[in-house]
Amino acid sequence: MVKEVFNPWEVSGDIDYSKLVKKFGITPMKELPKIFTENVLFRRGVIFAHRDFPRILEAIKNKKKFVMMTGLMPTGKFHIGHMIVALQMVFYQKLGAKVYIAVADLEAYNARNQSLEESKKIALDYISNYVALGLDLKKCDIYFQSDRSLEAKKSNSYYRLQNLLARHATFAEFKAVYGEITPGKMVSALLQASDMLHAQLPEFEKECPVVVPVGIDQDPHLRLARDLSKRIKTNKFTQLSSTYHYFMPGLDGGKMSASIPTSYISMEDSASEVKKKINKYAFSGGKATLEEHREKGGNPDIDVSFQYLKFFFEEDDEKLKEIEENYRSGKMTTGELKAYTIDKINSFLEKHQKKLEKAKKIVREKFA
Amino acid sequence: MVKEVFNPWEVSGDIDYSKLVKKFGITPMKELPKIFTENVLFRRGVIFAHRDFPRILEAIKNKKKFVMMTGLMPTGKFHIGHMIVALQMVFYQKLGAKVYIAVADLEAYNARNQSLEESKKIALDYISNYVALGLDLKKCDIYFQSDRSLEAKKSNSYYRLQNLLARHATFAEFKAVYGEITPGKMVSALLQASDMLHAQLPEFEKECPVVVPVGIDQDPHLRLARDLSKRIKTNKFTQLSSTYHYFMPGLDGGKMSASIPTSYISMEDSASEVKKKINKYAFSGGKATLEEHREKGGNPDIDVSFQYLKFFFEEDDEKLKEIEENYRSGKMTTGELKAYTIDKINSFLEKHQKKLEKAKKIVREKFA
Repeated sequence: MVKEVFNPWEVSGDIDYSKLVKKFGITPMKELPKIFTENVLFRRGVIFAHRDFPRILEAIKNKKKFVMMTGLMPTGKFHIGHMIVALQMVFYQKLGAKVYIAVADLEAYNARNQSLEESKKIALDYISNYVALGLDLKKCDIYFQSDRSLEAKKSNSYYRLQNLLARHATFAEFKAVYGEITPGKMVSALLQASDMLHAQLPEFEKECPVVVPVGIDQDPHLRLARDLSKRIKTNKFTQLSSTYHYFMPGLDGGKMSASIPTSYISMEDSASEVKKKINKYAFSGGKATLEEHREKGGNPDIDVSFQYLKFFFEEDDEKLKEIEENYRSGKMTTGELKAYTIDKINSFLEKHQKKLEKAKKIVREKFA
Repeated sequence: MVKEVFNPWEVSGDIDYSKLVKKFGITPMKELPKIFTENVLFRRGVIFAHRDFPRILEAIKNKKKFVMMTGLMPTGKFHIGHMIVALQMVFYQKLGAKVYIAVADLEAYNARNQSLEESKKIALDYISNYVALGLDLKKCDIYFQSDRSLEAKKSNSYYRLQNLLARHATFAEFKAVYGEITPGKMVSALLQASDMLHAQLPEFEKECPVVVPVGIDQDPHLRLARDLSKRIKTNKFTQLSSTYHYFMPGLDGGKMSASIPTSYISMEDSASEVKKKINKYAFSGGKATLEEHREKGGNPDIDVSFQYLKFFFEEDDEKLKEIEENYRSGKMTTGELKAYTIDKINSFLEKHQKKLEKAKKIVREKFA
């Protein structure tokens, strides 16, 4: 199950990223303006590819309006893997973007049999975490698919687009996105296309570039929305931009999944839970014995603790490099690496959990 | 093409009504309360069958709230065949119903490639005719599918229902309604189900019976909406009631079609156009020669002029009976019957066209 090298920059689980980049025809991320190097996800290449991203760079450079659009599927607990998108929301807000966040409650109903009530409960937890991570609620438009807006003209416009897009789609395209297709999944795919496109309608931001950051498995959705936007004549759309990030590996090195509690660290895990999870479940790149480790060194490329530091828990590049070298040389043991990682995660979560308590109150009031 | 007996009470064009009643499992209309006999369409059996209609009779009897729901497909000119539904709107309003009218502009876009702008133009013409025929705009909710409401909570609720219904539908059901199915047609069928059901949502009239008067060819839509309403759990729906009416025959005795101008009399036809159309195109039940006609008599059952009188242009039952007898005996000639019908239609249209001018102004202002 675990391959020799499986870190997300090469192969994670069964995803062969370089093959997917070729297959989907997306572009590897090239050198970016200096401001992007301030962000650990861009600097370290967690965000590794794109479509039409220069349009967003241009908007940032010229201080023009742009939108960062994302969605959340309200299932399971918010965990550290979800931080990749959340940190991008906060980063893009600082760059001047208006952030649109769709709570995919109708998709959860149609594709996962989940009630709107359950979706709302979980979504408020997600949104609270975004706020605790720095999201400014004033600079974003967070909405439920089932309840788009308090302004009628906006709601009408959003659902109208979903309905109009239907004429320009084929069953074959839906099959490409969803594999086995049902009426519920088809309708969800159309609504998701409206999610990605509707910010450009006159009732919303009107004619502005939109960037959608996604995991590469989401690209079929992007391709569908891009294709439909070219065919529809009721509005002229600027082609969507998108970026692609690696998935954070689960504790065992496979997929981090909200349905497998031992695969992730949740934002509400206690310090002792984090300690236990890292010590017990985090796949290690160390050797079988201390003696062998000292002699041959460990492998940070397959070590999950090291990957977590590299994603964002160790922001200091120098320090990360030092850890990588020491672990690879055998100077640092797996126990030491795990202890360091536990410490980093726990000091982060301690602060986060305090902010989260406050955020929950704010979010509950706002979305009551 | 023309069968020996083809009047709508037996066979019109290729529609075998009695077979359809059996096939669809709808119920022939039985004796109705006295108030219904005041309406020529009920009195003469133009409205000939139903599903769950006693629920509406009960609401009328107990002076409880109920809704009459209908839709218009904005294509072609408003003609005398459209009056069958329009006259029912006016009648139900007088019985206390709130009338919901959906302008199916998204359906016209998805199933007929017609722009929203073109649909709006045509729809205003339809609505003006409703008003001229007596529709009270204060007691109805006329809306465009693409622009449900000026109240956000209503719009959200209407489109939410469309999306939620998707989970409970199968492709097989859409095929039963539309034959060859496309994503556009599927989405239209779901929106139409929401059209029929949404009046019962808390944001609209809440828990009240709804009657949908339709031509029998529309029954598959009704069956789809009925079935979906039973499966969805987010709202408890009272089962839809529906009534079925015959189609008014076209001038040649076949189908009256908005795309064949010589098949119908439009509400804006001049007196001379009506005269020409009836004299030239109206299929006659008379005999080949005057001599033969006087001897053997004519056949009012297949005579289109007589049918038009019977639908509603001759409101007086005694007079209608007299005409029928005289035509059947040969005492009345085809020329006399046509002249009488032309006169009846023209005196109706003269008054109607005056009302229509006023109605157009009101409607244009309201829906600008």
